[in-house]
Amino acid sequence: MPFDLASYMDERRKWVDEALDRCLPPSSAHPSAIHEAMRYSVFGGGKRLRPILILAAAEAAGCGDRRALPVATAMELIHTYSLVHDDLPAMDDSDYRRGQLSCHKKFGEAIAILAGDALLTLAFSVVSLEPFAHSPDDRRFAWIIREIAQAAGTEGMVGGQTVDILSQNQEVDASVLLYIHEHKTGALIQACLRLGGIIAEADPSTLEALTDYGKKIGLAFQIRDDILDVEGEEKQVGKDLGRDEAKGKITYPRLLGLDHSKRELRRLVEEATQALSSLPEGRTQPLRAIGEHIIQRRN
Amino acid sequence: MPFDLASYMDERRKWVDEALDRCLPPSSAHPSAIHEAMRYSVFGGGKRLRPILILAAAEAAGCGDRRALPVATAMELIHTYSLVHDDLPAMDDSDYRRGQLSCHKKFGEAIAILAGDALLTLAFSVVSLEPFAHSPDDRRFAWIIREIAQAAGTEGMVGGQTVDILSQNQEVDASVLLYIHEHKTGALIQACLRLGGIIAEADPSTLEALTDYGKKIGLAFQIRDDILDVEGEEKQVGKDLGRDEAKGKITYPRLLGLDHSKRELRRLVEEATQALSSLPEGRTQPLRAIGEHIIQRRN
Repeated sequence: MPFDLASYMDERRKWVDEALDRCLPPSSAHPSAIHEAMRYSVFGGGKRLRPILILAAAEAAGCGDRRALPVATAMELIHTYSLVHDDLPAMDDSDYRRGQLSCHKKFGEAIAILAGDALLTLAFSVVSLEPFAHSPDDRRFAWIIREIAQAAGTEGMVGGQTVDILSQNQEVDASVLLYIHEHKTGALIQACLRLGGIIAEADPSTLEALTDYGKKIGLAFQIRDDILDVEGEEKQVGKDLGRDEAKGKITYPRLLGLDHSKRELRRLVEEATQALSSLPEGRTQPLRAIGEHIIQRRN
Repeated sequence: MPFDLASYMDERRKWVDEALDRCLPPSSAHPSAIHEAMRYSVFGGGKRLRPILILAAAEAAGCGDRRALPVATAMELIHTYSLVHDDLPAMDDSDYRRGQLSCHKKFGEAIAILAGDALLTLAFSVVSLEPFAHSPDDRRFAWIIREIAQAAGTEGMVGGQTVDILSQNQEVDASVLLYIHEHKTGALIQACLRLGGIIAEADPSTLEALTDYGKKIGLAFQIRDDILDVEGEEKQVGKDLGRDEAKGKITYPRLLGLDHSKRELRRLVEEATQALSSLPEGRTQPLRAIGEHIIQRRN
């Protein structure tokens, strides 16, 4: 029977959405403006790819239950905070995100800045709650916090965003584009794969395979994003398209051309799948299917 | 021999500054703009009151060494991030901080937003590094992460900042003012006292005494801040004075008058000192002296 990725993702998306709902204060909680803004951004149609990758990586390493869910939730909160801050006028200045007004257009800039700060902070709160925080040994728990913080900081996501902002309307070469993609999007995605493995207490070679898969799939995801910005349909993607071009942003299609970018995308996904070849095939079905999904995704 | 608070604080300030220098990437590290902005904000003349409170609280609970230094460092990073974001045009719109240009005036808004994000993220990275993360038992380590995240989030600092922003130029009463002060500044200061106790493995009654001291000293600190905004000298305080008034911000002197505010300040510090009475007197000298210092501080 062929693997049904849609059902697999739907089920896990539901786990993640429920966990997000449990950890976010209700919109009515004082001060309500900030909690409304946080919920608006978190429940604004995210695909939950990152948390699903954590759950699928844990499964690939032999842990098929919901043990990784708190960390999956935390990484979705961090991803959401990064979008809220990226959309700010001083950053990418985007009025729409996932087909709805961006957080600052809806709630004002001050609340959007604070909502992003609060989402990032909440991520660390979520993983430190019982019983999750007490289930791994202490070394593993500290390792998890460290992986999250390093992937989100200047060695990772914030570093990528910094170079992205500073490169707008600049002449940059392929190495700068690679740096931006590997850090701005790639670092968090790669960390998701590693975190799944760490939670599942993967042996070093399994963790290495997941890391390798994560690095390649993270870059592939961003190349697909660049391609969609050129040829996607605005309604389906749900954000202002052609904005990369308008903002003078460097992208794969601009640098390599559309055809070459598509070949690069396919090559990366094939290599990512190859990285999983030493793991039991039954356990890696979801990750392999997600690779194919990234090549074909329309939003 | 009377206790020499100045020497005590100078010595610990040096510990903290060295630890901050060790944990922050060098300004030259790629991408340098973000690391320069982080270092500029962290080394822009902070008094290090919060980390010193953590160290003094740990000492009051029987731990006089540098064991609490990683958490002290983390809390100073969080305090600094909150100032960088508070100063942004969409928030308090302050051009100066501690007598120098605020981060966004010096590096631009985008880099200031990212530097704040990175400082908050780095705080969690710092506490999760070895050997600190492995010295307490795992439950205690998770507890520390939870205390930090809850004090900095919407139940604490970000909640206070949200109400502060929403209250500008609004008619508000004493209960709103108290909420802002107890959350915007108070929550983080109270957490510093608790964290010192938790790291020192304080018994429940000691932890309660530190919590009580922290709650009162945190509010006292903010009332002193309000008073300084009215009567301090700009050069000594190092930021734009009278700004609270200009921004239509509610403050203690505006609500209660200057004399009443000063009486309230003294009462709180006396109560804070009283809260420590069950602890061995020798160990609480620094905390008691810091209380007096808060009443008299000029910047």
